[in-house]
Amino acid sequence: MDDRGLRELACGANRELARLGLATLAFGNVSVVDRAAGVVAIKASGVACGDLEPDDVALVSLADGTAADPGRRASSDTPTHLELYRAFAGTGAVIHIHSPYATSWAQAARPIPPLGTTHADHFRGPVPVTRELDRDEIAGDYEAATGRVIVERFADGPDPLDVPAVLVASHGAFIWGTDATSALDNAVALEHVAAIACHQAALGPLEPIPAELRDRHFDRKHGPTAYYGQPARVRTP
Amino acid sequence: MDDRGLRELACGANRELARLGLATLAFGNVSVVDRAAGVVAIKASGVACGDLEPDDVALVSLADGTAADPGRRASSDTPTHLELYRAFAGTGAVIHIHSPYATSWAQAARPIPPLGTTHADHFRGPVPVTRELDRDEIAGDYEAATGRVIVERFADGPDPLDVPAVLVASHGAFIWGTDATSALDNAVALEHVAAIACHQAALGPLEPIPAELRDRHFDRKHGPTAYYGQPARVRTP
Amino acid sequence: MDDRGLRELACGANRELARLGLATLAFGNVSVVDRAAGVVAIKASGVACGDLEPDDVALVSLADGTAADPGRRASSDTPTHLELYRAFAGTGAVIHIHSPYATSWAQAARPIPPLGTTHADHFRGPVPVTRELDRDEIAGDYEAATGRVIVERFADGPDPLDVPAVLVASHGAFIWGTDATSALDNAVALEHVAAIACHQAALGPLEPIPAELRDRHFDRKHGPTAYYGQPARVRTP
Amino acid sequence: MDDRGLRELACGANRELARLGLATLAFGNVSVVDRAAGVVAIKASGVACGDLEPDDVALVSLADGTAADPGRRASSDTPTHLELYRAFAGTGAVIHIHSPYATSWAQAARPIPPLGTTHADHFRGPVPVTRELDRDEIAGDYEAATGRVIVERFADGPDPLDVPAVLVASHGAFIWGTDATSALDNAVALEHVAAIACHQAALGPLEPIPAELRDRHFDRKHGPTAYYGQPARVRTP
Repeated sequence: MDDRGLRELACGANRELARLGLATLAFGNVSVVDRAAGVVAIKASGVACGDLEPDDVALVSLADGTAADPGRRASSDTPTHLELYRAFAGTGAVIHIHSPYATSWAQAARPIPPLGTTHADHFRGPVPVTRELDRDEIAGDYEAATGRVIVERFADGPDPLDVPAVLVASHGAFIWGTDATSALDNAVALEHVAAIACHQAALGPLEPIPAELRDRHFDRKHGPTAYYGQPARVRTP
Repeated sequence: MDDRGLRELACGANRELARLGLATLAFGNVSVVDRAAGVVAIKASGVACGDLEPDDVALVSLADGTAADPGRRASSDTPTHLELYRAFAGTGAVIHIHSPYATSWAQAARPIPPLGTTHADHFRGPVPVTRELDRDEIAGDYEAATGRVIVERFADGPDPLDVPAVLVASHGAFIWGTDATSALDNAVALEHVAAIACHQAALGPLEPIPAELRDRHFDRKHGPTAYYGQPARVRTP
Repeated sequence: MDDRGLRELACGANRELARLGLATLAFGNVSVVDRAAGVVAIKASGVACGDLEPDDVALVSLADGTAADPGRRASSDTPTHLELYRAFAGTGAVIHIHSPYATSWAQAARPIPPLGTTHADHFRGPVPVTRELDRDEIAGDYEAATGRVIVERFADGPDPLDVPAVLVASHGAFIWGTDATSALDNAVALEHVAAIACHQAALGPLEPIPAELRDRHFDRKHGPTAYYGQPARVRTP
Repeated sequence: MDDRGLRELACGANRELARLGLATLAFGNVSVVDRAAGVVAIKASGVACGDLEPDDVALVSLADGTAADPGRRASSDTPTHLELYRAFAGTGAVIHIHSPYATSWAQAARPIPPLGTTHADHFRGPVPVTRELDRDEIAGDYEAATGRVIVERFADGPDPLDVPAVLVASHGAFIWGTDATSALDNAVALEHVAAIACHQAALGPLEPIPAELRDRHFDRKHGPTAYYGQPARVRTP
């Protein structure tokens, strides 16, 4: 894909994030990667998602984060996105949001348990929460350190394509997918299950569903024997 | 009704479900039945309700679930819908949703008590919750088993046309009606009463209303002496 | 005002109620009265507020509730509206809603305390809750009895124009005003303060504001020395 | 800026407040100041923000609050706005809202702790709450007294441009900024963090984030070494 196409793809995904109600003010951004070209396209810093034009998309090097063209300054969260692309093979798009319900779980530093099949349709197991950054990480290259604590959280599992979202403690959520469409779907699903779980907290204790139900739902959509969706719609792992 | 008419009816009902805000992503589907022809029309699997076109509606046999034409693959929830049509005479449409408030009650595995007349206007008594599926049911023909635990729940009452909704534990809600319009009304009513009940939970214990008030409200809309609505609008039981 | 004008006024007010998000399904109705003519115009039974046309407005006699013309059947809640017009002088419009937050307070049978100046700007003191109807009242002329328990609740105060709303236990809210515009404003205010109070319940105990602050806010909008609004906008008590 | 320009600026900001869903009924107003001319432009009293026309903007003297032209009567909250402009140098716009979540904190008389980076991006530390007004303040020049308890609250810090919002106990929120755009952004941010914090309250105790994380986020947007946004976008303190 040429630079223009990559900009338009990233622009459309950021505007869709705003349209979905997931990006208030300039909180929230979407990036997409062209792994063959080694380029990441991401929202420019300080621009509201809903107002984005293709020229408000910054292109940076996947390898070292340097600007790939003399355009707008990239989102300050870019180093976090880059850490995720480098560590999570198969990821084609990354999203960052401060949506009301997912962020309430992130601020509470609580993983979201798999409380129902809505969750299991998208995430095989809890949506995990990172540890808090330490004082040196906050004072240093803070945004890259944010990416590193996410990667660290997945080091011993789960597979990031089985649980394509994470809560950063005290902060918000990062979500990813094989492409922009699946990442946006996962972001909608995350906020939806975070909201259901918040409402449920008013009704009693939060008990995870059995592992076999969790796996049945995840596998009917994503496993090798998936039977959800139309035959042509095959997941590219 | 010919196949085209049935497709258009099902398509319109699925689009209305999305417009009502009850179907996020591809969570949610509506089916309608033509009992004379023995055909059920249901949303194709993996297609968002709001984007549905008549060609995205699958037709299947009410008797055995086989495809009634070589169209799109039917929703993976189709076997659940079929179980309900076979067991619940008089049902003309079935809806499945993962809406935020009804699903919080389903995940909590709590029936929604009749806490007010809004509830009683649509449901004569609590909206029940199914038992959890066992390991074999989850591993086997899971979606048909989901339908069977719903039917099991109504075996000793209530009459499914008096309580046209159920919560499937750990999952979401199924709703039905004599036709697509009444099923959609019941789905809106279910999410509305689930939300009121959730808000009420913050204010104190949840006490059901007296049976005589519950029956008065249900009967003024649905009983043999109903006096709600216009004279021409008679409920077809 | 002639019949056509009264129908159009009632129709517009019912449509506005739907546009404001306060009338889900056919839950909710607005009536207006022409006291000189002794006629009340109200939504026809079973018609959704948002779809109302002037011909869907029923005209009934204020004195005895009989149909004032051979039009549509009036809302089943009409006898409640009539009781309020007869008892509360100066009331020009009455609204009934089952909105999510106000109804959660009604179902909990808790009056909404004056917790802030938003409340005090519209209601001088708590929004009261009626007693539950007894078995005979439910079995008899239920809707008129609903009106009578509301009137009973105001018999020893407050002045219904100082507190133009009530919660009917286990049911929903009735709201009124000197005209349709003020009644609609009061309905919006009621749902707004009910929502704030529900959110506040998560943060600690609910303490009413001091009486002098409550009165200062009410009087700056509604009292004889009101200084809120433009000079031409005088309240007609 | 001439009077017409000032009216149009204030009008647009009030309409934007309504469009953002932050001003229900006539609750809420925005003012802007022209410090060189000594004039404040504010919404006329009793007019809904969303319907405002430039002629519905009142111009008053910053020095003494007298009408600067024979137009509409200014919002009854004008004396509060004036107190803030006089005490908080660098403030170019002031907003007052009764939004559902921020007001629930104000009514609970609880400051909003910095629970996450969404908060820290806009407010360096808790959003404070004023003391309650005493009986004499309520009986006297109430609106000016409201401004004075806000100013009193900031007398020993924080810097009002570092924490550009306050909760008035039992009342609602006031928000400000260097210009109308930044004040509107701060108002959106306040309601957003108030909502997240309310949801979080259902999940466990509310623990503030570490001071170093709070400062890192505030400084990357607002400090002398800010690296958020585009180079041309410099904050005018």
